[in-house]
Amino acid sequence: MNKKQIIWKHKHLIGLRDFSREEIEYILDTAHGFEEVSTRNIKKAPTLRGKVVVNLFFEDSTRTRNSFTLAANRLSADVIEFTEKVSSTSKGETLLDTARNLEAMGIDIVVIRHSAGGAPKFLSRNINACVVNAGDGCCEHPTQGLLDVYTIRKIKDSLEGLKIAIVGDIAHSRVARSDIYAMTKLGAEVILVGPPTLMPAKVEQLPVKVSYSLDDVIGQLDVINMLRIQFERMGVNPFPSVKEYSHYFGLTVDRMKKAKKDILVMHPGPINRGLEMESEVADGPNSVILRQVTNGLAVRMAVLFLVNQGAMMQDKKERLEGQ
Amino acid sequence: MNKKQIIWKHKHLIGLRDFSREEIEYILDTAHGFEEVSTRNIKKAPTLRGKVVVNLFFEDSTRTRNSFTLAANRLSADVIEFTEKVSSTSKGETLLDTARNLEAMGIDIVVIRHSAGGAPKFLSRNINACVVNAGDGCCEHPTQGLLDVYTIRKIKDSLEGLKIAIVGDIAHSRVARSDIYAMTKLGAEVILVGPPTLMPAKVEQLPVKVSYSLDDVIGQLDVINMLRIQFERMGVNPFPSVKEYSHYFGLTVDRMKKAKKDILVMHPGPINRGLEMESEVADGPNSVILRQVTNGLAVRMAVLFLVNQGAMMQDKKERLEGQ
Amino acid sequence: MNKKQIIWKHKHLIGLRDFSREEIEYILDTAHGFEEVSTRNIKKAPTLRGKVVVNLFFEDSTRTRNSFTLAANRLSADVIEFTEKVSSTSKGETLLDTARNLEAMGIDIVVIRHSAGGAPKFLSRNINACVVNAGDGCCEHPTQGLLDVYTIRKIKDSLEGLKIAIVGDIAHSRVARSDIYAMTKLGAEVILVGPPTLMPAKVEQLPVKVSYSLDDVIGQLDVINMLRIQFERMGVNPFPSVKEYSHYFGLTVDRMKKAKKDILVMHPGPINRGLEMESEVADGPNSVILRQVTNGLAVRMAVLFLVNQGAMMQDKKERLEGQ
Repeated sequence: MNKKQIIWKHKHLIGLRDFSREEIEYILDTAHGFEEVSTRNIKKAPTLRGKVVVNLFFEDSTRTRNSFTLAANRLSADVIEFTEKVSSTSKGETLLDTARNLEAMGIDIVVIRHSAGGAPKFLSRNINACVVNAGDGCCEHPTQGLLDVYTIRKIKDSLEGLKIAIVGDIAHSRVARSDIYAMTKLGAEVILVGPPTLMPAKVEQLPVKVSYSLDDVIGQLDVINMLRIQFERMGVNPFPSVKEYSHYFGLTVDRMKKAKKDILVMHPGPINRGLEMESEVADGPNSVILRQVTNGLAVRMAVLFLVNQGAMMQDKKERLEGQ
Repeated sequence: MNKKQIIWKHKHLIGLRDFSREEIEYILDTAHGFEEVSTRNIKKAPTLRGKVVVNLFFEDSTRTRNSFTLAANRLSADVIEFTEKVSSTSKGETLLDTARNLEAMGIDIVVIRHSAGGAPKFLSRNINACVVNAGDGCCEHPTQGLLDVYTIRKIKDSLEGLKIAIVGDIAHSRVARSDIYAMTKLGAEVILVGPPTLMPAKVEQLPVKVSYSLDDVIGQLDVINMLRIQFERMGVNPFPSVKEYSHYFGLTVDRMKKAKKDILVMHPGPINRGLEMESEVADGPNSVILRQVTNGLAVRMAVLFLVNQGAMMQDKKERLEGQ
Repeated sequence: MNKKQIIWKHKHLIGLRDFSREEIEYILDTAHGFEEVSTRNIKKAPTLRGKVVVNLFFEDSTRTRNSFTLAANRLSADVIEFTEKVSSTSKGETLLDTARNLEAMGIDIVVIRHSAGGAPKFLSRNINACVVNAGDGCCEHPTQGLLDVYTIRKIKDSLEGLKIAIVGDIAHSRVARSDIYAMTKLGAEVILVGPPTLMPAKVEQLPVKVSYSLDDVIGQLDVINMLRIQFERMGVNPFPSVKEYSHYFGLTVDRMKKAKKDILVMHPGPINRGLEMESEVADGPNSVILRQVTNGLAVRMAVLFLVNQGAMMQDKKERLEGQ
């Protein structure tokens, strides 16, 4: 891969909507370079030594948090786990005060997950540290979007012209949103598949096609990304029964027979086995689910590295302008 | 600042009541030296490499614990989070056994927070490791006291002759106690301000003045330290209503008009905005609240460094005496 | 001690039942070598730098987890705390998916504690990383068994011919099982002591004697290991009253008068003081309980080191066979 040289100047990663194709590709190229670190006998680079990364998670997460922690460790950063209990009445206030306190302690990068969409953006406007969005409400989960396109690009070389379906609860999925931005910017055609009740409002404003039948589209797909049914995010049940949902939108061995031989099967994890996907498919030859996890580490190393570079860039600029 | 050379021999930091003016100044001078580490590109000194610091917190805390963890990381120590659930019937026993177990694992410094006053002292008598009090009952919170005087001294050069009010729930405040010792030893005059129900018993034995009216004293003050109302520590409500409390003892924009132009506004955090202090004051030009947080890191680095030095001193002495 | 040279090839530590006398002695000899690291001024060896150890604890634990964390830190490994909430319906599935995810993130060693016996074995069959059992159901707790024999060997030079009683709730004790394997393989005679209701099923298949009276056997013992009464593991009360249990099976000052002068008193901790043991005995001259804790660290360093060596050995073998 020829890594295009661009001058990286972003000190935050809030969402992929804000990034150009070139910028997304630059992150992926950087991640490619970091993949090697994880294959070393001593899996460490001194890149972020003496820097402090804070995991500021207002929602439970094991996988994403561990992935960021491992990525930070691999770059020799120190990691602080910061779990703040939030009262429902004063969320904004608490977040702002927490942010200012973190900044005062001299931390360098905040990795934030928050149930309120926009919290990472809000944070980035109010503190001097780098902010990396690890998922905000139903908005974005940009490192997931990045690791998804990284995984596809690694196997298919390019996303140009690929047909990719994102299947399931699009309305509540920040993964879907980040995927849509990343995939379409890299040249893929995205089809959202699910029952009408799980489609987002104003779906027509997104650069995607919509289908209400998985069977109608599965034969044309190069990649299928099965979203997790997130019971905890839904209020009233948006579909009559889980069984009916699985019947129409589950990725079964049977349904896979209609797919292209080299279709890539993806899932952001953790899988509800037998629900959105049968175990035979999750563990089958087309599944790249575990490779997504592996690639997530390289992508997050790249993101932590780049936002820190962006911060150094801006500091330098401010110093020059201040002269 | 001319750092006076004294031979530091304390391996514990239990309370500021036990320390002389020279010793407190020596800690502040040492903290001043460590401030520079946090401004480096690589925020690390190898000072405590291979040492193990245990955060032994029997009460919830995010800020103080993170501050100690960051301070220990910055000095290259390893940090263990040790959270022990305490049954109400066997507190002393559990603490003693925990202490002995920690010692047997070869840890070097215990940072302890405990709801029972005296727990850090008890611990220090029963184990060989260094003990740092991170708050015990309503007794002391010495690193808070230190960072408060550090912050004042940094701006005003000296505390000699300054008039400082500590406002609010003095009775339940370990911060107030540590502040009183540190501030008066460094030459300041301390006035406790609050309703009579929130004054400590035997207040006349403390080297302080008492006022029941903030309006009476605010005009004379160089520094005002607004304590947090800790609803969780109070049993029955000690004042008729929060609104009434705020009316008489809250630091409002209006009340600030009577204060000296260069008064320093302090708060140990987290702030109940609108209650003990209006947001405009907390974020205003006189506020040094975030500087307190920053200075807390330098002070805690100094404390960890010094107690370790004290331990080495005593080991050496014991070896010499043992010969 | 002459360390016998064997070629260590195990990348997992599941249970001591699987290990030969030579292998157990090799672990103890290796631990002896690591003991020195903990006495250094800088308590660090670079042995596992860049390796990632995951603490995968499905049951609460403070002491064992901290001991593993300290051991890993001392060998310069990074440690990830991975706490997965397990739904009762899909335990196996969750563990398998968790395991595969961990593997995909490139971690090197999993230290697992699980309420289901066999979970570590299951894990070791399904992932490529090293697996160390930190306690599974009522099966084994091998590092406890190792540190127990390490402690005895260090004081008595050899276990050959020693009479050792394990007293208490044998049926629910994974410590007892690991002790039995380790002690008898090293040549000791083990007597299980407790009420019939707390003896394991098929006790006659174990290489031990059984006694229902502590008073009958105490005079002959070289070592006595008092198990903790684990109320949380028992369903209905297996003995009429705690008081009655203590009367017959507690290690009291009175009962100690019948013991040999140089009997070693052991306990895996934490002690229910006054229940299985009186405080005077726990803190008395025959007690080696805190030395067990200290030795646990050296033993766990040895185990982490050796399973990593085993993994490197197998990788090399596979590469050679693959040529």
